[in-house]
Amino acid sequence: MAVYTIVDDTALETFLERYALGNVLSFAGIAEGVENSNYLLRTDQANYILTLYEKRVDPTDLPFFLELMETLATAGMNCPLPVMARDGSVLQELEGRPCAIFSFLDGTWSRFPNKEKCRELGTALATMHLEAKVMRRHRLNALGPLAWQPLFSSVKSEADTIGVGMTQQIQDRLDAIIENWPTGLPEGVIHADLFPNNVLFIGDKLTGLIDFYFACDDILAYDLGICLNSWCFEADGSFNLTKSRAMLKAYDKVRPLSDAEFKAIPVLAAGSAMRFFLTRLYDWIHTPTDALVSPKDPMEYWSILRFHQSVSGTAAYGIDL
Amino acid sequence: MAVYTIVDDTALETFLERYALGNVLSFAGIAEGVENSNYLLRTDQANYILTLYEKRVDPTDLPFFLELMETLATAGMNCPLPVMARDGSVLQELEGRPCAIFSFLDGTWSRFPNKEKCRELGTALATMHLEAKVMRRHRLNALGPLAWQPLFSSVKSEADTIGVGMTQQIQDRLDAIIENWPTGLPEGVIHADLFPNNVLFIGDKLTGLIDFYFACDDILAYDLGICLNSWCFEADGSFNLTKSRAMLKAYDKVRPLSDAEFKAIPVLAAGSAMRFFLTRLYDWIHTPTDALVSPKDPMEYWSILRFHQSVSGTAAYGIDL
Repeated sequence: MAVYTIVDDTALETFLERYALGNVLSFAGIAEGVENSNYLLRTDQANYILTLYEKRVDPTDLPFFLELMETLATAGMNCPLPVMARDGSVLQELEGRPCAIFSFLDGTWSRFPNKEKCRELGTALATMHLEAKVMRRHRLNALGPLAWQPLFSSVKSEADTIGVGMTQQIQDRLDAIIENWPTGLPEGVIHADLFPNNVLFIGDKLTGLIDFYFACDDILAYDLGICLNSWCFEADGSFNLTKSRAMLKAYDKVRPLSDAEFKAIPVLAAGSAMRFFLTRLYDWIHTPTDALVSPKDPMEYWSILRFHQSVSGTAAYGIDL
Repeated sequence: MAVYTIVDDTALETFLERYALGNVLSFAGIAEGVENSNYLLRTDQANYILTLYEKRVDPTDLPFFLELMETLATAGMNCPLPVMARDGSVLQELEGRPCAIFSFLDGTWSRFPNKEKCRELGTALATMHLEAKVMRRHRLNALGPLAWQPLFSSVKSEADTIGVGMTQQIQDRLDAIIENWPTGLPEGVIHADLFPNNVLFIGDKLTGLIDFYFACDDILAYDLGICLNSWCFEADGSFNLTKSRAMLKAYDKVRPLSDAEFKAIPVLAAGSAMRFFLTRLYDWIHTPTDALVSPKDPMEYWSILRFHQSVSGTAAYGIDL
C-alpha cells in the first residue's frame, strides 16, 4: 500500500492541462504497489491511473517499461496503455517526480486463483513473451542469477536468525541452482513479477496484467517458474499439480515449449524461489520491528524452493514428456 | 492514508452476495481516512465506498454515524448514503470488522479552498445543522472542552520539548478559553472535523461532505470555528478575512446566527484551535520517529490559537454587528 507523494489539487489541475482527458470527477490515492505512488483519476471521459515514480525506481529504466506496456496494449493485450500528453510525450513530471498516466483496467485479483485462472495466465504470459519480441529497448535482470550470491552475502551474517544452520543450507541450495542453471534457452522480455496481485480478472476472464516495473530480459521459461511459485501453491504450502498443468499447457499452446525448456522448469522455479526468498530475507532483516508495513515471511519461499529441488522431473508439474 | 484490513477476493464475493449491487468491475483500497480501511468498489451499476471500521472507532457509535449520513443524504445533501443489504440492514461485518457500503461521491478536495468554496462550505454547514435536527440518536463530544485539560495533563511533562516555556503558556491559554466558554448557545449535531480534505468539489461547486466519524452533539457555532481554522488561514499562516466573511455570511443566510453566536466566534475558534493543537501535540509526542506516517506539526494550530485570542471582536472575521 503506498502513496508517497501527495498531489495538491492545484498541482493536479495545472498538470492535467498538458492532457486532453476531460473534466476531473474524482482523484484518490490507491493502496496498490509498493514502489510507486498510484492515483485513480476519474474524468467525464474515462478512468485512468496516474503513477508517480518514487526513489526506488531508476528513471533511466522508465522508457523501457513504458515501451513494453505500449507494445503489449497496442497489440491488443489487457495491459495499461500509457496515455500521451497533448505534445505526444508519455513521461511527464509532477511534484518533482517522473510520472505517467495509464488507461485503467477493470478487474480484481484473486488471492488463490483457480485452475481456469491459471490457464488464462498461461495463455497471457506466452502471448506477452511473443508480442514483446518487437521491443527496441532492453533491460538486464538486476535480480537475476548473478545477483543472488551478492544479495545472500549481504545478509549472510544474520541468516541464522531465521533458523539454526540456515546460512549453510542457503549456500548449498544456491550453489546447486547456479551449477545447474540452464544455458541456450530462448530469452526475451519477461514480466518477472507476475504474482496474482498483478493479474486482474472479471469472473475467470483475465482482464489485466499490471505492474511491469520488474520487467527485464531473461530466460522466457523463468517467468513460468515465477508464476508456478506464486499461483500453484495452496495456503497450506501444498503444490497443486492440476493448476500447474493447466498453466503450462495453456502457455505451450501459444508459445510451444521445447523439451529443454520443460526439463529446465524445476531449476528455473527453484531459482525463482531463491530470488524471492533472498529479497524477502533481506527485507525481513532490514525492516524495523515497529514498521507499519510488515515484511513478507521469507520461509514461505524456502518451502517452495525445497519442493522444486526435491522433484525428479516434469511429471511433478503435470507434464509428461 | 490507510488500508488496515485486507479483503480477500473470495471474502468479498461472498460478502457482496448480501447486496444487490451488480457485478464487480474493480476493487481497490484507497489512501483516504486515517481511522478506517476504505475501498473503492466499482460495479456495472455504480461506484461505492466500502468502509471497514478499525479499532479506533467505537462500534457503539456506528449507528449514530450511519443515521446521520442517511438523514443528510435522504434530505438531498451531498453526503455518502449508506447502502442497504438485501435484508434491509446497513451495518455488516467483513474480515472480523464492522463495515458498511456507501454511495460514492464525485469531486476532489482543495488544499487551499478559494472564497467561492468557503461560501459553498458555509451554506452546506448551516444546511447540515438544520437537517440533522431530526436525528434520534445523539453522541457526546469526546474531544470537547471537558476533554482538553485531561488531554493536556497527559502530555504536560513533555510539552516543553516543542518550545521553552510552552507548558505554562498552554495552561494559561487553555484556562482563558475554559473561563470564557459560552453557555446557552444553540446546540445540535456538528461534523466536528470538516477540514478541506473532507469536502469535495467539482469546479467551485460543492459535491460532497464526507468522513462523519467525529460527528457529535455540541454548540453549532463551534463547527464554524473548526472550519474557520482549517479553511481561512493561508499557507503562510495569515488569516484571510475575505474567505471568513464569505463562509460566515453564507452560513448566516441559511441558519441565521444570533449576536451571541457571532460574539462567541473568537473563543469558539480558539477552543477549536486548542483541540487540534492538543491532539496533534499528543500524536507528535507519541509517534515513533521512524514511523511511515508523519504526525502533523502542532505549532500550526498554536499560531491559529494565538490569532483568535488576540482579536478584539467579530470585525476581525469580516462581520460588523
